[in-house]
Amino acid sequence: MIKKLCVIGVGLIGGSLALALRRVGYCEEVIGAGRNKDRLQVAQDLCVIDAYSTNIAEAVSDADMVFVSVPMGAMAAVFKQIDGHLKPGAVVTDGGSAKVSVMKDAKQHLKYSYSQFVAGHPIAGTEQSGVEAAFGELYLNRRVIITPTYDTNKRATEKVTAMWKAAGAEVESMSAQHHDEILAGTSHLPHLLAYGLVNCLFESNNSESFFKYAAGGFRDFTRIASSDPVMWRDICLANKSALLESMLQYQEELDRLKEAITKDDADQLLSYFQSAKTSRDKFKY
Amino acid sequence: MIKKLCVIGVGLIGGSLALALRRVGYCEEVIGAGRNKDRLQVAQDLCVIDAYSTNIAEAVSDADMVFVSVPMGAMAAVFKQIDGHLKPGAVVTDGGSAKVSVMKDAKQHLKYSYSQFVAGHPIAGTEQSGVEAAFGELYLNRRVIITPTYDTNKRATEKVTAMWKAAGAEVESMSAQHHDEILAGTSHLPHLLAYGLVNCLFESNNSESFFKYAAGGFRDFTRIASSDPVMWRDICLANKSALLESMLQYQEELDRLKEAITKDDADQLLSYFQSAKTSRDKFKY
Repeated sequence: MIKKLCVIGVGLIGGSLALALRRVGYCEEVIGAGRNKDRLQVAQDLCVIDAYSTNIAEAVSDADMVFVSVPMGAMAAVFKQIDGHLKPGAVVTDGGSAKVSVMKDAKQHLKYSYSQFVAGHPIAGTEQSGVEAAFGELYLNRRVIITPTYDTNKRATEKVTAMWKAAGAEVESMSAQHHDEILAGTSHLPHLLAYGLVNCLFESNNSESFFKYAAGGFRDFTRIASSDPVMWRDICLANKSALLESMLQYQEELDRLKEAITKDDADQLLSYFQSAKTSRDKFKY
Repeated sequence: MIKKLCVIGVGLIGGSLALALRRVGYCEEVIGAGRNKDRLQVAQDLCVIDAYSTNIAEAVSDADMVFVSVPMGAMAAVFKQIDGHLKPGAVVTDGGSAKVSVMKDAKQHLKYSYSQFVAGHPIAGTEQSGVEAAFGELYLNRRVIITPTYDTNKRATEKVTAMWKAAGAEVESMSAQHHDEILAGTSHLPHLLAYGLVNCLFESNNSESFFKYAAGGFRDFTRIASSDPVMWRDICLANKSALLESMLQYQEELDRLKEAITKDDADQLLSYFQSAKTSRDKFKY
């Protein structure tokens, strides 16, 4: 149970956590914090939070659990603002999509409460953003990766784990480095590829025809290109090295395909598509 | 109205056309043709076709409309087999995803009936294949592109147009070349990118983790990598030049992104994602 939860950045991710915990009665009170009063008022009007403050230090001062769900570029500033204002034993966690950079920010700026910080990442979301898109079932049966270190207080890790389980998620622990490599491949790279395809088609001379004649494959493939640009800018910067490595591998993959097409290598193309289909067909959920 | 429709290759595309035309009573009788008797029997058992023959020349002999929906690598062989066996005035059309190559095949092999051939492409489908996946609503409100030339009999073009309208589709006419350029971008390239991503992840050392932690973005992005490998091999070979050109442009797009990430160019990344989001958000259907 959490007596008071403070959500810093009440959008899709933070708002959905608040709703999920309320839904199961795991949390007595939720206070929202952020820079934009109007957006916080919307969150309160939608009954996602009970109260809010634009003074982040004040908002966290009597919270038992603090969930930081701001774009990753704003993490350091938030950590700086809350450090020294947390009550003893309060736990801090986050929802950032890359973990090495968040942990570096935390180590640097959470001087008084670093051991109480448990980095985490709920692998869930939609292409939408903002508190209006939040819903209490977002985390049901989804995975949350946490990346505690030897410095991390065990009790804090347990509390964060219990919170996510209450929200309906499975929790797994791994190193921040491993998390970032995996997410570069399964999430960050696909987002870049989708953004890239939309721009590639839209900037061309055929752009009107492209959009007119696009079908279901294009729609599903590019759904994620409607995702929040600020969030994805920050992810690219925060997970730079793993992402560049993934892009490099992916371009080699495309080179292989281009070569097979150039050479009219029917056998190579067939076995390439067959092995991809076999792998993809195994992936059900 | 079509008295007798012959569908050569009764899978998702051909089977769905038969079901769509039956649904609205546009077609009295459907004969299926192909190489595999067992598969044709399944189509008959599912009431998609009334009868079938593995002798394609015989199957088309009293058909008023022939729909060729085989993988594109098999088009030439089918045209060869039906040429000279069609009844006078019979119309031939196809469902191939690239049109320049099909028209070349038709010109070469439909010696007696080339003017009765109207190349076409219904922009519809799912990642599934086989007659079991066919359904009569597949073409409702979807677009069908036809690519008639000066050689094409006007009455034949009208008949094909009327057939697709009866199946619920909108029909538009353009050059085969233009069709192939558009489809390379909106359909063929995305399929290659999805196949490529699945292989890129699956061949890596992290493959188990990749699939374990993949989420909704990955699922939707790679749905089309479950598509039929033979069909996509043939599309790559048939639409080679437009596809290679698209891949080249796409790789330049990725290079641009890589450069922005390498340079930590936050402004460039943000404007890149914003313009993609703006374009993608306009695309609703």
